[in-house]
Amino acid sequence: MSEFFPFRFENDTLTLLDQRELPLKEVWRDYTDYTEVAQAITTMVVRGAPAIGCTAAWGFFLGVKALSPWPSPEAFPEAIATIHTTLSQTRPTAVNLRWALQKMGALPYTADREAYLSRAREAANTIAREDLAACKTIGQVGLGVLPRGKINVLTHCNAGALATAGYGTALGVIRALHSAGRLNQTYADDTRPRQQGARLTVWELLRDTIPVTLLPDTASGIAMAQGRIDAVVVGADRIASNGDVANKVGTYLVALAAKASSVPFYVAAPLSSFDFTLTSGDEIPIEERSGEEVRRVGGVLRTPPQVPVYNPAFDITPAKLVTGIITERGYIEQPTRATLAAFRERSV
Amino acid sequence: MSEFFPFRFENDTLTLLDQRELPLKEVWRDYTDYTEVAQAITTMVVRGAPAIGCTAAWGFFLGVKALSPWPSPEAFPEAIATIHTTLSQTRPTAVNLRWALQKMGALPYTADREAYLSRAREAANTIAREDLAACKTIGQVGLGVLPRGKINVLTHCNAGALATAGYGTALGVIRALHSAGRLNQTYADDTRPRQQGARLTVWELLRDTIPVTLLPDTASGIAMAQGRIDAVVVGADRIASNGDVANKVGTYLVALAAKASSVPFYVAAPLSSFDFTLTSGDEIPIEERSGEEVRRVGGVLRTPPQVPVYNPAFDITPAKLVTGIITERGYIEQPTRATLAAFRERSV
Repeated sequence: MSEFFPFRFENDTLTLLDQRELPLKEVWRDYTDYTEVAQAITTMVVRGAPAIGCTAAWGFFLGVKALSPWPSPEAFPEAIATIHTTLSQTRPTAVNLRWALQKMGALPYTADREAYLSRAREAANTIAREDLAACKTIGQVGLGVLPRGKINVLTHCNAGALATAGYGTALGVIRALHSAGRLNQTYADDTRPRQQGARLTVWELLRDTIPVTLLPDTASGIAMAQGRIDAVVVGADRIASNGDVANKVGTYLVALAAKASSVPFYVAAPLSSFDFTLTSGDEIPIEERSGEEVRRVGGVLRTPPQVPVYNPAFDITPAKLVTGIITERGYIEQPTRATLAAFRERSV
Repeated sequence: MSEFFPFRFENDTLTLLDQRELPLKEVWRDYTDYTEVAQAITTMVVRGAPAIGCTAAWGFFLGVKALSPWPSPEAFPEAIATIHTTLSQTRPTAVNLRWALQKMGALPYTADREAYLSRAREAANTIAREDLAACKTIGQVGLGVLPRGKINVLTHCNAGALATAGYGTALGVIRALHSAGRLNQTYADDTRPRQQGARLTVWELLRDTIPVTLLPDTASGIAMAQGRIDAVVVGADRIASNGDVANKVGTYLVALAAKASSVPFYVAAPLSSFDFTLTSGDEIPIEERSGEEVRRVGGVLRTPPQVPVYNPAFDITPAKLVTGIITERGYIEQPTRATLAAFRERSV
């Protein structure tokens, strides 16, 4: 059970595990061109809010490194704005991407190219190092929050090592429960259309011999009604200041079913997933992706090719359905505008 | 827009459209052996509660026709019990199957083989003929019940011509709305694992040029929260005497989402889908099917092959989430033990 990371950055080369090919093939791809990094985010070679934050930070570094000649202090802002925009326009919903790019863009200009690059390299590496540490802390915080006893936990999509710099947020909590002998079974939703549950969560948990059972997205309701599930833990792509949570499409249905069966519903997310500039989830942009993701499965056409498709990649779970948010800075019980303001006060 | 039927019965041969092959291939299969008919129901060559009722009735006829020599009055009950059991054990959840077999089994024995067979043939044909008529009436009843104006209707699975003797229950209502110029758009849930929405509902509606948009099962919640849906109409596999509804897995999640967004949620089903012997939905047996249905899509493996799977084929939508039930004997508003008892009184 060696530690697993969805990417590495060595000798100024970003190497990504191509998550589109999992679980049947493990293909690693090298990147040194920031526009190709942007493309890798858009096409979901890498996905998961914290993981695309890290990827964008390294992409930013690669973009600046390629500037030639090294720009004047006057030309620098425009040069990095182009890089920033290219990377930030890849996917609209997750806020970690913008958070990481803002951190990178805030590095002060130096006339000494090598000095700047050395600082930028270190800043990007730090974002990934801190994300990994945050995930491990989230796991420990989760241990203090989830129901006692040996429990069954349902998760949606993949908020695991593959979606972060390692260890995972929701799967970080599940890893911590497993290590503590408190996990009976993970129930992993398939997560159509891209099947991040069936392809990524199942693969990642089996790899670490953590018990996991796959179910179709349509079955989470009856699983909870039958008493099979003791708690739900999911990740987040963006959390608004009233506690509304944007996460992979289908999360909202799971939250409704959890509420109806009195199953606690937890969100596990690092501070970088909070967007305190937004009043509520209504303001979070919801990415719509190609209909081909729904018409085809694994490249194979499953429906008449001409059918129109509605394919939102995320949905909004209202704060009132969330039992609590597990972060690396502690637990937010019953997220509301007030509890989130207090959390912000003590954490940011 | 010719009328479409999922089967035909001519010259004592049952011909079924193999629904596993749709929408990419239209394969028709002939049956004269009742054990092969049972196999066709189990393997879902034909599916949909009313359609498997009709199929079982013809299967029963074929089973009795094959009895040789023609049994004595003493031997007859045991002979038909074998046929009855083989056909009724194919799938446990839909009650129409048992309802149709009970009708067939109740035909009185005659020493004259041809006289019995002629009556049995006519009884099976009548079940199908009456189911088609019931669907058309359900469509008309639905017109009086669904919201006015040009509306968007979401449906789950396939309760269409393919699931009945033609026209459909839920899709019967949608057909009637379309004919009346009151349908803006049908939203069809994918319906994993077997994708009856993507494969069958989309195919059937496009065939009749009825507007349809496909969405993943995970997206029905946000579609309703965004105000895209004016009403939900689904079919039923069994309705208990308190109004709880067993239907294709995932229906319960759609009902929860509809309730949360104040979207009316209708069940369209013939009288043959009611089971007044059951106190509540808790007593309805829920079929669990092979994990391979979830691990694979269109035969292609999508997850590590060794992962355990939870694959219930149905779920229970509690009566309190159902706005009303549309039947060929009229509309049941707010299904409860009392309103269903009154309905039974006037209908059965």
